[in-house]
Amino acid sequence: MSDELRTELSALGEFGLIKHLTDHILLRNKSTVKGVGDDAAILGYTDQHQVLVSTDLLVEGVHFDLSYVPLKHLGYKSVCVNLSDICAMNARPEQITVSLALSNRFSLEAIDELYAGMLLACETYGVDLIGGDTTSSRSGLIISITAIGKAEPERIATRSGARENDLVVVSGDLGGAFMGLQVLEREKEVFKAAPTAQPDLQNYSYPLQRQLRPEARLDVVDLLEKLEVVPTAMIDISDGLASELLHLADQSFVGFDIYEEKIPIDPQVAKIAAEFNLDHTTCALNGGEDYELLFTIKQKDYDKIKGNPNLSVIGHVTPDGSGVQLVTRAGDRIPLTAQGWDALKED
Amino acid sequence: MSDELRTELSALGEFGLIKHLTDHILLRNKSTVKGVGDDAAILGYTDQHQVLVSTDLLVEGVHFDLSYVPLKHLGYKSVCVNLSDICAMNARPEQITVSLALSNRFSLEAIDELYAGMLLACETYGVDLIGGDTTSSRSGLIISITAIGKAEPERIATRSGARENDLVVVSGDLGGAFMGLQVLEREKEVFKAAPTAQPDLQNYSYPLQRQLRPEARLDVVDLLEKLEVVPTAMIDISDGLASELLHLADQSFVGFDIYEEKIPIDPQVAKIAAEFNLDHTTCALNGGEDYELLFTIKQKDYDKIKGNPNLSVIGHVTPDGSGVQLVTRAGDRIPLTAQGWDALKED
Repeated sequence: MSDELRTELSALGEFGLIKHLTDHILLRNKSTVKGVGDDAAILGYTDQHQVLVSTDLLVEGVHFDLSYVPLKHLGYKSVCVNLSDICAMNARPEQITVSLALSNRFSLEAIDELYAGMLLACETYGVDLIGGDTTSSRSGLIISITAIGKAEPERIATRSGARENDLVVVSGDLGGAFMGLQVLEREKEVFKAAPTAQPDLQNYSYPLQRQLRPEARLDVVDLLEKLEVVPTAMIDISDGLASELLHLADQSFVGFDIYEEKIPIDPQVAKIAAEFNLDHTTCALNGGEDYELLFTIKQKDYDKIKGNPNLSVIGHVTPDGSGVQLVTRAGDRIPLTAQGWDALKED
Repeated sequence: MSDELRTELSALGEFGLIKHLTDHILLRNKSTVKGVGDDAAILGYTDQHQVLVSTDLLVEGVHFDLSYVPLKHLGYKSVCVNLSDICAMNARPEQITVSLALSNRFSLEAIDELYAGMLLACETYGVDLIGGDTTSSRSGLIISITAIGKAEPERIATRSGARENDLVVVSGDLGGAFMGLQVLEREKEVFKAAPTAQPDLQNYSYPLQRQLRPEARLDVVDLLEKLEVVPTAMIDISDGLASELLHLADQSFVGFDIYEEKIPIDPQVAKIAAEFNLDHTTCALNGGEDYELLFTIKQKDYDKIKGNPNLSVIGHVTPDGSGVQLVTRAGDRIPLTAQGWDALKED
């Protein structure tokens, strides 16, 4: 390779690189309904159903740290992360493929643990493991999963359908997975200093569970069907609320007003954030890996979802050009910027 | 992890590990027609078409060596390898997803080269790149591709349909990719010893092309449709003819008689094999990465394919228990064993 012209990948970041690489892609096949740019691609073979395809690559040392992540949990989580992308299209996952690159430091028993977690996730979500590839790795563990799902075309929610005055809804609560990661990182340091100390993690159970064993919100997809609500736009929260709102704003050509006091945060998470001298709203906005669903609905659907303990209305859609604004408890308006996890800038 | 019980992965090998991990998988969804165990999984959404899904993980230092593989060729090849798995079901590939893990030693210009090769393969084969994931890697380049294809159910060929007295057919010629690899490895050593020497590789053009830029035999899928031949069983030759014959024998519960003199080998490849003191039949049997199609047809279809320069009849199907036998030019019968590439045993 010539070094005459060298642009560092860090100059673009993950989203910039993806945009650069995929901006000029042509679609040729009738069966390709939608390609790059959403939580999943959409394929069409019949009028009754469309097929959703999403893929994720998880790399040891980048996405997970085996010094504190049990392999069974890692297996479970790596499947859920992918299923979440199918749920984020308001669809049901049905199949996954799993490819693994393994170094010879892994024993068969270790891989069995990883696989047991994956198959448990498949069982929990009614998903079939249909294929994959297994190879060796010169360094760490690499997990590549492709998830495939199905939905009626009229129920599929992309990132581009949010319209002015729609309500912004989020499932569950936010910031927990990020706080769980902080607790694990702290314990890792404690362990290094005093390997025989027994950590008491009882007060941290909820954020640890959120970090180590997140769930895909298929129950929310089912709930919305039961409530006869079709989101106008949807995305899952993998990189933090702020980053996902910016994606929806960008692809729907709208802005958002989000109310700080409405952002759902678990009391235990808020308490631990205080212990770490962190602002819990910031954790919810910028901490990733909650895998909750963020979506917009028409105002007329408000009565169908109000009072549901799984769903919080956190704001509304504003006209294009208004930006994504956080309205604080004090009434100030703060424009949100993406501080989500950006793997390519971490290096 | 406890070290009380530790079974090394090398004790099982790649195929043994896959069998161990996937033997007890349950399939739950109506849309899953066939899971693990063939070149691609089969999904069913309509009566008119079935959907084929296959995935491959390529790891730097295991599957490719960037010291002599140009990135554009690597991009092209990594797509073709996956499309070949769809062709091996007698189906047409229509979509791929591409996930990359990149270390920061890669520049944007380098990734553009890799992607240009991938998009060229997409253009050549009429395939859409519909999604993927891009992340950082702590070490080398990792490429994970999932290919999706389509076929009429009655045209799909699995590994399990070969029947006694069927004819065994192979497309193209064999051993070329393996000889290309030998040439590249030799040049790498020469370069280490004398970095300024200009290699003359003109006499090696065919095997180098076979190694660096293989094609998926979609043309053979088209040809078979035109000839109105549906193979009874099919597989692509990624690990060597012997290994693939053993897969077909195992999954179809049959044996094979293969005639050494009928195995198609390009004269340039035979000449270079001699130069390397290698037996060219052994190269064809055990050298991988030719990505030709190996299939069985009913005897009544012989007239439709005979004389076609792309297809060679190399033997016939024998009863279960007969084994896979090579009938040599001297008339000896040699039972074939798998010496195909086994990534997990290489470490």
